[in-house]
Amino acid sequence: MTEEDEAAGRDERRKRAEEETAGMGKVSVLVAEGFEEVECLAVVDLLRRAKIETEMVSVTGSRVVTGSHRIEVVTDRLIEEADFSETELLFLPGGGKGVANLSASAAVARAVRNQLSAGKRAAAICAAPSILGKMGYFAHREFTCYPGWQDGIDGVDGARWTGRGVMTTGDITTGRGMGYAVDFGLELVRILKGEAEADALAERIQHPGTVEGKRA
Amino acid sequence: MTEEDEAAGRDERRKRAEEETAGMGKVSVLVAEGFEEVECLAVVDLLRRAKIETEMVSVTGSRVVTGSHRIEVVTDRLIEEADFSETELLFLPGGGKGVANLSASAAVARAVRNQLSAGKRAAAICAAPSILGKMGYFAHREFTCYPGWQDGIDGVDGARWTGRGVMTTGDITTGRGMGYAVDFGLELVRILKGEAEADALAERIQHPGTVEGKRA
Repeated sequence: MTEEDEAAGRDERRKRAEEETAGMGKVSVLVAEGFEEVECLAVVDLLRRAKIETEMVSVTGSRVVTGSHRIEVVTDRLIEEADFSETELLFLPGGGKGVANLSASAAVARAVRNQLSAGKRAAAICAAPSILGKMGYFAHREFTCYPGWQDGIDGVDGARWTGRGVMTTGDITTGRGMGYAVDFGLELVRILKGEAEADALAERIQHPGTVEGKRA
Repeated sequence: MTEEDEAAGRDERRKRAEEETAGMGKVSVLVAEGFEEVECLAVVDLLRRAKIETEMVSVTGSRVVTGSHRIEVVTDRLIEEADFSETELLFLPGGGKGVANLSASAAVARAVRNQLSAGKRAAAICAAPSILGKMGYFAHREFTCYPGWQDGIDGVDGARWTGRGVMTTGDITTGRGMGYAVDFGLELVRILKGEAEADALAERIQHPGTVEGKRA
């Protein structure tokens, strides 16, 4: 296959994916250097399986971004080129350095504020919920995150850390860590496409809960 | 950061990783167009967390490979440049098209044959165990894979499909599908670095089994 053929094939696949998801809002995933690969990509994978338009948005100035375990991923666009007006859900993956980099970005803070002040959804996993917490979005709200990252947030203005694996309170979904990445992705599918779609997907991916009945 | 700085940083990280893993065999992951991203990358992520040298080897002729959910990943090297003599474990991720592409590659078949005839380990998940099965490696052996992919293998020459989530029989580890990718990665860590390392890692990633006690 020539590079042109590859590019044409990629455009064709993207076009088909866009047609399948026409009329729905999209999910935008903010990707920083040092992002946790599974937390980010399991969610992208599951959302795309559920035919939800999902774009990976680099906040680094380069479309190629390196995760916390040295996996390099090609994102779909730069945050400078991104339009979040159609973003139904904004997702912040974890990873210690990735979250430090997301936290340091004014463009990320602006995207989060615009998203939540417009009454739209956000989601964050592992260390990333701390970004939303420090911006004050957990006031009088229950949330979860990687143990330790609730410090300075839990108990302030009625915010309460539950330590649960995955939870949704109002417009915000939070997750505890990489071990819950698949459950977290399924929760977002449940929210955006309904219970039946999420259950069917859980079965299709051989989720242990559907195979062994050990998990809900 | 300039591109040169980035390249230097990458080389530095790679060098440090190699030093940390000196003296151990490496894991080589065969990556084809259409690979299932989570099945592949959750394993790479966990092995690298456990400081096991892990290389992603493209079988497509290009270092950038697109997964089954349109996620593009930059692999470490091409199979034409790969040296499997130090490969302690050869891993084949799933994904329908990815497995069709692995199956069609003479270089992949040669790598598998050399690996197993040298008494070294192999692992495959989802549809990929069928590659080992069709080459006859499940004779008088129990294995698992994505339901349906055992057809034509199960029952032949004493091969027996169990449908379990993850299992190791002798030199070969097999997994049922994407929902078991993390458990599969932990099983490889258990084999290569021992029970204690795998248990500690399960805890560190907030595996539901360690958080809720629902899974072993």
